[in-house]
Amino acid sequence: MKELSFLTILACAFVLPAQAEDIVHDAEYKILERQHSQKWQEQDKAIDKKLADIRMNNGDERPNIIYLLVDDLSYGQMGNRKMNHVMGVNTKNINDFANEGLSLERMYTEPSCTPTRAAMMTGRHPIRSGSSEVKVTLVGEGLSKDEVTIAEVLSEAGYSTSHVGKWHQGDIEESYPHNQGFDYAAFPAHQQVQLSLMTKEAALANNLFGWNDTMQNNDFVIDKTFRPNGMVTGLEARKGEMAKEVHMPAGHEWSQADYHEMNVRYQRQAIDQLQQLSKLNKPFYLQYWPLYPLNFVHDQTPNVTRNGGFMAEKLQLLDTWFGEFLNELDNLGIADNTVVILMADNGLMYHYGGPSGLSELIYRGGKTDFLEGGIRTDAYVRWPGVIEANSAASDIIHVSDLYTTIARIAQATDQIPRDRIIDGIDQTALLLEGETNGRRDYVYVYQNETLAAVVKNEFKMHVPTPGMPGAAAPVFNVYRDPREENPHIGMALWSGASFQDMMKRHMMMIQKYPHLPLGKGVPYSGIENLRPETVKLVDDFKSWH
Amino acid sequence: MKELSFLTILACAFVLPAQAEDIVHDAEYKILERQHSQKWQEQDKAIDKKLADIRMNNGDERPNIIYLLVDDLSYGQMGNRKMNHVMGVNTKNINDFANEGLSLERMYTEPSCTPTRAAMMTGRHPIRSGSSEVKVTLVGEGLSKDEVTIAEVLSEAGYSTSHVGKWHQGDIEESYPHNQGFDYAAFPAHQQVQLSLMTKEAALANNLFGWNDTMQNNDFVIDKTFRPNGMVTGLEARKGEMAKEVHMPAGHEWSQADYHEMNVRYQRQAIDQLQQLSKLNKPFYLQYWPLYPLNFVHDQTPNVTRNGGFMAEKLQLLDTWFGEFLNELDNLGIADNTVVILMADNGLMYHYGGPSGLSELIYRGGKTDFLEGGIRTDAYVRWPGVIEANSAASDIIHVSDLYTTIARIAQATDQIPRDRIIDGIDQTALLLEGETNGRRDYVYVYQNETLAAVVKNEFKMHVPTPGMPGAAAPVFNVYRDPREENPHIGMALWSGASFQDMMKRHMMMIQKYPHLPLGKGVPYSGIENLRPETVKLVDDFKSWH
Repeated sequence: MKELSFLTILACAFVLPAQAEDIVHDAEYKILERQHSQKWQEQDKAIDKKLADIRMNNGDERPNIIYLLVDDLSYGQMGNRKMNHVMGVNTKNINDFANEGLSLERMYTEPSCTPTRAAMMTGRHPIRSGSSEVKVTLVGEGLSKDEVTIAEVLSEAGYSTSHVGKWHQGDIEESYPHNQGFDYAAFPAHQQVQLSLMTKEAALANNLFGWNDTMQNNDFVIDKTFRPNGMVTGLEARKGEMAKEVHMPAGHEWSQADYHEMNVRYQRQAIDQLQQLSKLNKPFYLQYWPLYPLNFVHDQTPNVTRNGGFMAEKLQLLDTWFGEFLNELDNLGIADNTVVILMADNGLMYHYGGPSGLSELIYRGGKTDFLEGGIRTDAYVRWPGVIEANSAASDIIHVSDLYTTIARIAQATDQIPRDRIIDGIDQTALLLEGETNGRRDYVYVYQNETLAAVVKNEFKMHVPTPGMPGAAAPVFNVYRDPREENPHIGMALWSGASFQDMMKRHMMMIQKYPHLPLGKGVPYSGIENLRPETVKLVDDFKSWH
Repeated sequence: MKELSFLTILACAFVLPAQAEDIVHDAEYKILERQHSQKWQEQDKAIDKKLADIRMNNGDERPNIIYLLVDDLSYGQMGNRKMNHVMGVNTKNINDFANEGLSLERMYTEPSCTPTRAAMMTGRHPIRSGSSEVKVTLVGEGLSKDEVTIAEVLSEAGYSTSHVGKWHQGDIEESYPHNQGFDYAAFPAHQQVQLSLMTKEAALANNLFGWNDTMQNNDFVIDKTFRPNGMVTGLEARKGEMAKEVHMPAGHEWSQADYHEMNVRYQRQAIDQLQQLSKLNKPFYLQYWPLYPLNFVHDQTPNVTRNGGFMAEKLQLLDTWFGEFLNELDNLGIADNTVVILMADNGLMYHYGGPSGLSELIYRGGKTDFLEGGIRTDAYVRWPGVIEANSAASDIIHVSDLYTTIARIAQATDQIPRDRIIDGIDQTALLLEGETNGRRDYVYVYQNETLAAVVKNEFKMHVPTPGMPGAAAPVFNVYRDPREENPHIGMALWSGASFQDMMKRHMMMIQKYPHLPLGKGVPYSGIENLRPETVKLVDDFKSWH
């Protein structure tokens, strides 16, 4: 008997090597798991077999993974011809791409760039890593080195990793992508408010006031530090190296032309990375996060869209660029063994609705909102021959699920940390088996540090203002009332207690696994060639820290 | 020379027989025609040849034409999978049908049932025939015998014509479909407010108050005629015969079950008509205008949609029914030589948004509104082998254009009257040649008798309230701002004078061709079997007329 047990233990150790411990999920997932554990375990075995077969058919190699993340587009604004007609744009390449794979029709993100990207990178609600706040100028903060990013997970598991484009995870050394698991990174230190709005052109286009100090009378300006000047622009680096600012001579005033050139450069670099990575003898993870369509100035070139707005035009350009990028993937002959995910990071920046060409479409609200318009985006996944072409799913999925799902597909689940809550659910079953195979029926919706809404199935509760009884919280049915305009408080009274329970469970888990602190440091640490104006800016910053 | 002229005249008479006179269009069309006459004339010659070739390939016979008109659905609510996912319904059959033909992405209707249907039947803005007002109960009014309907045009040209379902063109004899050109008609005298809302079940479902006099205390009711009782329900008739009320015994109280049975009956009769018409030795025109999805009471059967609302469920049922209808068309072997048009008559009846399951989706507003949500609907046209499959067009088209276009396709243009304004533009070029071949760039949008908005290209002016200068009228760009939320008065100042000119031209033409009067008469004239309660109701009506 003893020997038999020993053999059994040996066998188990062989089947489940290294990390056998379960990933720590939020309590809500455990509620689901308890109800479906047997079915899911069986399904997972079949999926493991399927993934092994796929590897076998691809020279015993795991698939490449590409993550294309578009900035600030609401659900419906890319990938659907009918909506193209509404908007007067033509995202033909994205539409075609969408038709080649699975449309995730209920992808939830966080309501803004930094938190969504943090959620995807860490597999965790950004509140857990302190990354829920959007950063506009220099802050001396960023994604902590203690977070374990998807790039670190995949690196550890033998993937090459590259990042090109928007990053927006902070301006301190530890937060830069090449210090967070990427072998190579080309990225701006900040984001488009700096790059396309804080320019003289944006002031001349009447899209910005008060920042550019040559554009108005400044009789009463006493504090010259209120308008930050000399911020770092584009950076490039390799893992283990210091970052270097590129294409930005000292004393040069950043302009819209520089912004456009930066966009062009990232497109070129994304394709260049694709080419280089495809030649390596290992699978790769490449994320290309363009800055366009976010844009605030007309480029003085003739419009091509029927819409003509200064963001709509860039959406059109981005579609062309994605077409080129996906073409290159075909040309390199690696499209079949590459999973490509294309989605937006949050709802549109509707503050320029009208002239920008992009306005509310289906859901109400946009970037920064907890309404569906802020947190529902188009999301498409293609994996030729594996994911059913021209399919669609209304299962709920959250952007953090990509972390866990990508890790699974890359055979890197063991590298996911077990000492913290991972919000991301493994949704491989949804991708491979299609609609109704999702493993999530809930989302906690945060605005910065505030829990603003809770989603369960088709129901969405807007968290009541302090003092209002939870039972009287407005609850919406997102199918029947997509724009969240008719709260049926009476009709949803039955759900009040259940929603309260969901919040309690969530808070109990936070007590058990407290949030980790955001990384802190000196802005622009780890950059080897700061310009004199940047050094001055950092000095200003230090003076009050 | 004299003889030559005579021959020339003879030749001309041969080329242009009978009706050589031009159709009288509104001034705005003439502005366009003057700019494109040569191109359009050449294109028309090619189209004539194409239509002749099509006839030749079909045993020298003209195509059948089927017009499926859905009640009260806003743009996006049928025919698109992505929007299905938003709403939690699955209009699979309509989606498939849409993919087999041309999606008319900018179809404008009138803002309500009666006017849209009148526009289609007469090819004229309903204001011109006095048909712009919606009728709810008995009115002693209806479509005038002096209007020339598409059914009369097609009958005259040798088509068999049938109408099944909602009609809503009045309750006097001359207005009934079999007196307006249809060989056969099965239709309710009124509409769904009577048939699904003015029932005891609707009161029990809390969707109607005050009408059913057994549902509440009536201590203060002195006037028993305020609540009309005994209205005529379903009618059937053949051309030249009197109408007969069917399936409604005297003294019977109309119920939701009767309404459902009526819907089932029309579906059966539509298919039955299809079968009968297909056996005749002539082409046919069949219009099937279902009453569903409009519905106000849950049928006490389990829901099948994810949405579950009492209208959403009926939209789902209607999709199944259309699937059956289109299948029968295939089974009969006549699908290839049949043009099928499927569209909605105006935006959703959003007054029951939420529980009905149907709420605002993309455009703002709904039925009764001059906003895009009231007058933009899904519209799909299929003509296998002739109209390009899976195509779409953003050319502006108005529901009245179907009149002229169908006549053209049926070789019946000569039967269109020349003594009045025909608003319907011949859009055959758009159907056959595809996007950018439309011949309309404008729409005058009426709410009842009031001109409420004017559309030109992507611009839409809301007609200013009296006293406001026209130059300060709110003008919207429907691509950049689909929900008409940001009037850019300043940015659109340039267009003020041009919009004023459009209105002036339109009014000048009305002076030249004044509106014709609505038909008037005794309610329910021409029905051979009025119930006693109906006779009493008519007597009540007569007492004050």
